[in-house]
Amino acid sequence: MKILTEKISVNTKGNCDIVNITNEVQGFVNKHKLREGNVTVFVVGSTASISTVEYEPGLKKDIPQILDKLVPPKQKYHHHETWGDYNGHAHVRSTILGCSQTIPFLKGELLLGTWQQIVLLDFDDKPRVRKVIVQIIGE
Amino acid sequence: MKILTEKISVNTKGNCDIVNITNEVQGFVNKHKLREGNVTVFVVGSTASISTVEYEPGLKKDIPQILDKLVPPKQKYHHHETWGDYNGHAHVRSTILGCSQTIPFLKGELLLGTWQQIVLLDFDDKPRVRKVIVQIIGE
Amino acid sequence: MKILTEKISVNTKGNCDIVNITNEVQGFVNKHKLREGNVTVFVVGSTASISTVEYEPGLKKDIPQILDKLVPPKQKYHHHETWGDYNGHAHVRSTILGCSQTIPFLKGELLLGTWQQIVLLDFDDKPRVRKVIVQIIGE
Repeated sequence: MKILTEKISVNTKGNCDIVNITNEVQGFVNKHKLREGNVTVFVVGSTASISTVEYEPGLKKDIPQILDKLVPPKQKYHHHETWGDYNGHAHVRSTILGCSQTIPFLKGELLLGTWQQIVLLDFDDKPRVRKVIVQIIGE
Repeated sequence: MKILTEKISVNTKGNCDIVNITNEVQGFVNKHKLREGNVTVFVVGSTASISTVEYEPGLKKDIPQILDKLVPPKQKYHHHETWGDYNGHAHVRSTILGCSQTIPFLKGELLLGTWQQIVLLDFDDKPRVRKVIVQIIGE
Repeated sequence: MKILTEKISVNTKGNCDIVNITNEVQGFVNKHKLREGNVTVFVVGSTASISTVEYEPGLKKDIPQILDKLVPPKQKYHHHETWGDYNGHAHVRSTILGCSQTIPFLKGELLLGTWQQIVLLDFDDKPRVRKVIVQIIGE
């Protein structure tokens, strides 16, 4: 059994930008020629999340619209009084959606559905360069 | 240390059906007689989620009612324009709740609470046969 | 590769109390002098969750306020008819936020962001002593 850890950089536009990182994750599995195991995908930082989605233009609009209703960007947050910034909504969203997902693979292939992609969601109010940890345990 | 991967099939009614899969997951741990480790439970597809819940009839109504309010099934989603289908809400819910959970076990027993069960939530708008990956790492 | 499992006890005030458990998790990694791997943090029980957050006083108020709006404590839940209790909201929140997160470490350090802390969120309507499982896989 091996454990392998890689940091990848992901450029985002912020503001609930949803970035497909499936190729990067599958590429890391390919590189090490492992057969069976899983990949933990973890985002460093407290204003973003990792999840899966059917990556198509409609949902890239639907998810931000629903989140704008549930955790609105344009309201007062106590967080703003702490730092004088305006991204309280981004922190709350990150806590609700979570920082990590673990995806199994078999015969070297991530066991995702046909339309299921691994994504980084960036809730911050400006473009960011995000660090994502991709860690394999397998053999 | 061993790694073991199994696919199970789960029949659902869709429409936020919540199916208890705890026995299947514990049974897989029992079968391999492992003592210490964890199980990653992952749902294949982009309109369902894995979580835990006290599995009783009241919450099986409460969770769909709250989700109907937060991510309503009967509204327009941009996703519908992409495919001509009507399950935009199911995709958004899946991204918010997530595709995987990891549950530790010790002395061969999942370390769940007395009332805490592992469930598949199926948000799609029709009955489905779901593939769930159960993957053990342990010894 | 080693696997190590520890149970920790966490006192909470309930009512969406958010407790920082990062030091306990990092301490467990330090104790075993492992270099590379990950920690699965799992809460036992069905009215609490594990997530990450920038742990500062503003967000400790913002997160409960948003959750009070999304999954209100003061409304009827079918769950209350099952048991005669009043924590239906706590169960629904736990299912939405999830019971586990997996955090990678390298050179013995959890790969968290500068402001990103691991927290237990307790949604129950009274103070609790929570059991949290911290499980390391690494070498």
